[in-house]
Amino acid sequence: MRYAHKIMNTITLQPIGRIHSPFTKPEDMPIQPAAARGMSGSVELFPEFTDGLQDLDGFSHIYLIYYFHLSRGYNLKVIPFLDTIRRGLFSTRAPKRPNQIGLSIVKLIDIKGNRIDIEDVDIIDGTPLLDVKPYVPEMDAPDNCRIGWMTPFKSQIKKIKSDKRFAADNSD
Amino acid sequence: MRYAHKIMNTITLQPIGRIHSPFTKPEDMPIQPAAARGMSGSVELFPEFTDGLQDLDGFSHIYLIYYFHLSRGYNLKVIPFLDTIRRGLFSTRAPKRPNQIGLSIVKLIDIKGNRIDIEDVDIIDGTPLLDVKPYVPEMDAPDNCRIGWMTPFKSQIKKIKSDKRFAADNSD
Repeated sequence: MRYAHKIMNTITLQPIGRIHSPFTKPEDMPIQPAAARGMSGSVELFPEFTDGLQDLDGFSHIYLIYYFHLSRGYNLKVIPFLDTIRRGLFSTRAPKRPNQIGLSIVKLIDIKGNRIDIEDVDIIDGTPLLDVKPYVPEMDAPDNCRIGWMTPFKSQIKKIKSDKRFAADNSD
Repeated sequence: MRYAHKIMNTITLQPIGRIHSPFTKPEDMPIQPAAARGMSGSVELFPEFTDGLQDLDGFSHIYLIYYFHLSRGYNLKVIPFLDTIRRGLFSTRAPKRPNQIGLSIVKLIDIKGNRIDIEDVDIIDGTPLLDVKPYVPEMDAPDNCRIGWMTPFKSQIKKIKSDKRFAADNSD
């Protein structure tokens, strides 16, 4: 019974493409697209999904949802890049998570066939792509936001680079 | 060889909790949180993840990443709720996608133990939760956005309700 229950709750996904970027090692990556301003990359959809890209070129920004394929394991408390204090994992964007799902907003530059040229990329080269969605400020940009422990680091968010803390061979 | 390749590319996830909302049927749901303004719900994390919620209560808004468990199959061209013209799937937020991953920004009201009280919920009751991330405008709110085919529907985005188009028993 318990085994059957487990199976039922397992979700199986297949990548729909790959993300290409100048970043081949986690330690050189900007931690968020805002810090990756101008960095060029591309999204290569597997050819069978090309038709789904129609009409996307009218959008200036898109969400990429992807799989942190280099992350292994996680801790529920982590010291984020920005901080020196241990924080609850879900209050951070650290890649080591129970489900290693990454989310970035990137600038859409052009679409040619199954390839989307993008800018402001903060994603490691070869990352498996799970989904693409249009970014719509009317849905996605709430007003009057508070950002908790990140408040004192507001001005650094757009500048800071990652370090080796979340590299594949590092257990923390 | 081909089989082994397929297996290697399969990504397996386990839900980390459930989302609770007043919506029990897809046809009554608002299509986005902006249209769900004020609707109360909650996120129940499985108890083993509770420690990861520390520090999250300082954030006013959070991303919920979840699995559209009622969706079956997909088409690469769909007629979106807002429109009467068939659009490329990846230029829409339709729940029937190759990987049925949903993304919503909701208002965080309170955290008690493993429960997050939320508002502006556009998610069906019982939806499996995959991840929680803090919403940070400095990372997540780009300027000068264009929204392509959605432009003429800008004022409707915050009001429109979904219909049965994406219900579980509907093939389109």
